[in-house]
Amino acid sequence: MIAVGERINGMFLDVKKAIKKKDKAAIQDLAKRQTKAGAKYLDINVGTAAEDPAEAMRWLVETVQEAVDTPLAIDSQRLPVLKAGLEVVKGSPMINSTKSDPEALDVFMPLALEHNASLVCLTMNAAGVPQNIDTRVEICATIVEKAMEHGMDFQNVFIDPIILPVNVAQDQPGYLLQVIQQVKFLADPPPKTIIGLSNISQGTKERDLINRIFTVMAIAAGLDAAIVDVLDTELMDAAITADMLLNRQIYSDSFLKAGRML
Amino acid sequence: MIAVGERINGMFLDVKKAIKKKDKAAIQDLAKRQTKAGAKYLDINVGTAAEDPAEAMRWLVETVQEAVDTPLAIDSQRLPVLKAGLEVVKGSPMINSTKSDPEALDVFMPLALEHNASLVCLTMNAAGVPQNIDTRVEICATIVEKAMEHGMDFQNVFIDPIILPVNVAQDQPGYLLQVIQQVKFLADPPPKTIIGLSNISQGTKERDLINRIFTVMAIAAGLDAAIVDVLDTELMDAAITADMLLNRQIYSDSFLKAGRML
Repeated sequence: MIAVGERINGMFLDVKKAIKKKDKAAIQDLAKRQTKAGAKYLDINVGTAAEDPAEAMRWLVETVQEAVDTPLAIDSQRLPVLKAGLEVVKGSPMINSTKSDPEALDVFMPLALEHNASLVCLTMNAAGVPQNIDTRVEICATIVEKAMEHGMDFQNVFIDPIILPVNVAQDQPGYLLQVIQQVKFLADPPPKTIIGLSNISQGTKERDLINRIFTVMAIAAGLDAAIVDVLDTELMDAAITADMLLNRQIYSDSFLKAGRML
Repeated sequence: MIAVGERINGMFLDVKKAIKKKDKAAIQDLAKRQTKAGAKYLDINVGTAAEDPAEAMRWLVETVQEAVDTPLAIDSQRLPVLKAGLEVVKGSPMINSTKSDPEALDVFMPLALEHNASLVCLTMNAAGVPQNIDTRVEICATIVEKAMEHGMDFQNVFIDPIILPVNVAQDQPGYLLQVIQQVKFLADPPPKTIIGLSNISQGTKERDLINRIFTVMAIAAGLDAAIVDVLDTELMDAAITADMLLNRQIYSDSFLKAGRML
């Protein structure tokens, strides 16, 4: 599983404070610790607090890049903020994320191509977030169609079927597993799948356990990537073990340690 | 997941000793603790040590039934030992297990029907244990065919695709998940699937973690039952959480506690 570290997000109080105080050390510490824990991307989200969110995004990206070489996921729904991050980001970033109306994809896919970026496409459109399998898969088909139209490699398209809290809609986690399976049949090679994990356990008891178990179930269904708390060692161990059991990583007695370094 | 408690097995030293000494208390303690931990069946296996295995099976079954009402899985490959257990068992037991040559099924299916028992059918035949998906599924088809011929309800047929240690054959766990998925398409309603879990981690480090993660992956693939160490609380919590996420058990803040009592 490609682990995207979720922690550099202005919704977390420590990051919010660090953005406000321009506290580089706090941000760089999170960047280093997440990289060491096995993050393959670091998500960068300014949250809602910054007075000038575009400027805050630029500062975050530059601050993180001073400390680590880990690829970044520039995370904003606001185009000016996203572009501010993309202007300064190095290497091949991830853009997280776009709605998947044809009109939105016509803006975001060229932007992704311009920046040699992967693109997270949410299975939601103007009508909102679908609650069933079929409408999600229909939106996936739109994403595939638009990727072909724009000449975007499916390997750089990450479909996010949008997870809902299990205590709100208990049929949704099972639906999501089926969507993840069905995406594999949309093309060969297929687009990738990604989930923003922590939403599933919002408002529940046993948050860590629910996060961990759903991650493993999603990997069994074919999940490629997840935006997670990579500092949660038990979660990462679970994901690495699932990958090993699917023969994506060679078994050795130190497979857990090896998995973090892959 | 239907948890079958694995601990009353003469391969464990404490059980071997208890059989030898006719120590009822030791056996009944294991029966009670496994039942309390959420076992829906208790596996009863005399192991290889008993001088008179049929007599040992009878004693084990009677001893356990004095202490708990939990249904039993009479576990032996030797027909006289199996029959000794079936003669004294109460209620609807499980027979664990038979090879799935047509000739073997012609013996074991009538035996199961006679004793109102479920039957665990291994995906192995005279040629041995297949290492690929297709041959396993072919054997599953034979099992389904024979069940129809004998008038056996598919709900009482548990197919065991036979797990191999991941450090010996690392492609096998993934194959098993696919076999479990494919069994669901053999009939409507389909036969059930079961795994004897602990074999997967034989000879590895991180045995508990590997057992736990594969259980969750198998549940995601549609697994119905597993022969496991139900006294492993983390394993049981993982299985209960997976069931909850598949909407097989209602979410409440005390879903873990509720799951053990279902």
